[in-house]
Amino acid sequence: MIKTDILIIGAGPTGLFAVFEAGLLKLKCHLIDALPQAGGQCSEIYPKKPIYDIPGFPEVLAGELVDNLMEQIKPFQPGFTLGERAETIKKLDDGSFLVTTNKGTEHNAPIVAIAGGLGSFEPRKPLLENISKFEDNGVAYMIKDPEVYRNKKVVIAGGGDSALDWSIFLANIASQVTLVHRRNEFRGALDSVEKVQELKNQGKINLITPAEIISLNGDDTLESVLVRKISNANEEILLEVDDFIPLFGLSPKLGPIGDWGLEIEKNAIKVNTFDYQTNIPGIFAIGDVNTYPGKLKLILCGFHEATLMCQSAFQIIFPDKKYVMKYTTVGGVSGFDGSTKEAPKAVVKAIE
Amino acid sequence: MIKTDILIIGAGPTGLFAVFEAGLLKLKCHLIDALPQAGGQCSEIYPKKPIYDIPGFPEVLAGELVDNLMEQIKPFQPGFTLGERAETIKKLDDGSFLVTTNKGTEHNAPIVAIAGGLGSFEPRKPLLENISKFEDNGVAYMIKDPEVYRNKKVVIAGGGDSALDWSIFLANIASQVTLVHRRNEFRGALDSVEKVQELKNQGKINLITPAEIISLNGDDTLESVLVRKISNANEEILLEVDDFIPLFGLSPKLGPIGDWGLEIEKNAIKVNTFDYQTNIPGIFAIGDVNTYPGKLKLILCGFHEATLMCQSAFQIIFPDKKYVMKYTTVGGVSGFDGSTKEAPKAVVKAIE
Repeated sequence: MIKTDILIIGAGPTGLFAVFEAGLLKLKCHLIDALPQAGGQCSEIYPKKPIYDIPGFPEVLAGELVDNLMEQIKPFQPGFTLGERAETIKKLDDGSFLVTTNKGTEHNAPIVAIAGGLGSFEPRKPLLENISKFEDNGVAYMIKDPEVYRNKKVVIAGGGDSALDWSIFLANIASQVTLVHRRNEFRGALDSVEKVQELKNQGKINLITPAEIISLNGDDTLESVLVRKISNANEEILLEVDDFIPLFGLSPKLGPIGDWGLEIEKNAIKVNTFDYQTNIPGIFAIGDVNTYPGKLKLILCGFHEATLMCQSAFQIIFPDKKYVMKYTTVGGVSGFDGSTKEAPKAVVKAIE
Repeated sequence: MIKTDILIIGAGPTGLFAVFEAGLLKLKCHLIDALPQAGGQCSEIYPKKPIYDIPGFPEVLAGELVDNLMEQIKPFQPGFTLGERAETIKKLDDGSFLVTTNKGTEHNAPIVAIAGGLGSFEPRKPLLENISKFEDNGVAYMIKDPEVYRNKKVVIAGGGDSALDWSIFLANIASQVTLVHRRNEFRGALDSVEKVQELKNQGKINLITPAEIISLNGDDTLESVLVRKISNANEEILLEVDDFIPLFGLSPKLGPIGDWGLEIEKNAIKVNTFDYQTNIPGIFAIGDVNTYPGKLKLILCGFHEATLMCQSAFQIIFPDKKYVMKYTTVGGVSGFDGSTKEAPKAVVKAIE
């Protein structure tokens, strides 16, 4: 069982920054996220897109912002449970919470901070009769570790950025990449569309359009997929493959958190504006997942909410300690890894 | 009279960022600050010190943060009244506010946002009988424009960073720089202390320590100062000078704003946590100058407060318009100067 001070559900920008503010108060954090990497939407949905309203950054790519936050929180050594969805919560006799994921990983903490954004991102799945049978046996809706596909025969379906970008990436790793899409037209960054065209011309990507996968075959693991060309002839192609990766987008769902007994309003968790605590003492909600009068779903607001939340978390964990806030410019930052950062000290020195 | 949509009192980081958020809502801003430049404390007190708790910046110098914010708000062309202190406020018949500075500059706006930090920074003045007579006639407590001292004979008094740094800077501009301090020891950045030592050795700074200025002489303008060495002999030196600049530090004072009829608690302005509005409708207080339950005096909290404040300002100015928030990544940023920034658009393109 993983034990920590603040268990953060959601590793987007708000959840990540909470690690920093908790660290200044000497509280340790662990983060759970359904996505295979930290950064939430910024990493998964729009890593290469610029954000213009992060204070102090006239322009920053979403992926860069996440990299910066990861660097900023590094001294506080957060733990991560990635690619798993927080499923159930239970209050233990000692007042702490036990949170278990869909894969059975258990986490225990006196404070839970839900920084779940718009919810956990669930893949849109194609309507194929026996697809669930092959999940984790040849079918995946997200690519967690591209190395899994080394020297494999892979079919990717989809017509957006994910399908384009992963086809490009896997062209150098897999032994064969086939990209199937219902239309001839793809929608994505110009660069990506042009790169796929180039790889197709070089024979490194096998493109079948307009077409769709109509059935999956195999005993225990996937062995082949049947592709039907969308045309008058309705020509069918049987492809021997190791892996089928439909990339039809992700859609956020509040998911199991909706059943934790929290007050929900319009798919968001109600909190107070003092410390962003929910109706269950010890459970906070910060960032896009919460709602209160005047709420704006902006990253910069999540940063503020995370900061105030940590102050209350400290008081709950240490009811008898009084924390006196010190500015980082004055007090510096002391990492749990022994690192320290501090402003150069003034000297007192005679001039002769 | 200067007219604007939101009149911001205080050009520190919170006030500056308010310009950006107002700009996204097509509202124009004008800022008043008692200091001679934008940036508040970050520029005046600790421009070269690192801050570690601005989200997304593992480390940023206070001066750099201000530069970044100035760059970020540039498209929204804010106006500035610098080196003047907001003195009086009057509600006009049309419901808007008239704010007048200590120099008589008048500003008119339907919304006033006080982003006054710890207050306006007032210089600590030496106790010299007739000093007020020479203010603006040879005596200055802050350097607004160093060019004023070109080819002049200048005496600086003080033993901290400001006295050191301005002595170094003026050594290349003034015809003569004398630095007077009560002790032989100076307190400041090692670099600065060493540089003054070097300039003294080269005869470019005339150093008199331990010593103090005991009187100022002149008819209408300053003509000479009397310096007394602190020693058994108590030797006195009469220096012919054009300018005397005592740099004994700044101390923040809420000042005249304290008399505007706002609810004050512990030297801060009470606001609600919905939109950070004060007890006077149309007047908001954001950043370190305000107080509410859970308040933390952090720059990142000021950013959040500025953002929520702008939403309400918009509703007050345009009660009939409904503003639908657009993410900058989606909607881009359209400056009042005609500039636009936006994320590269996705293309829809066939691959053949």
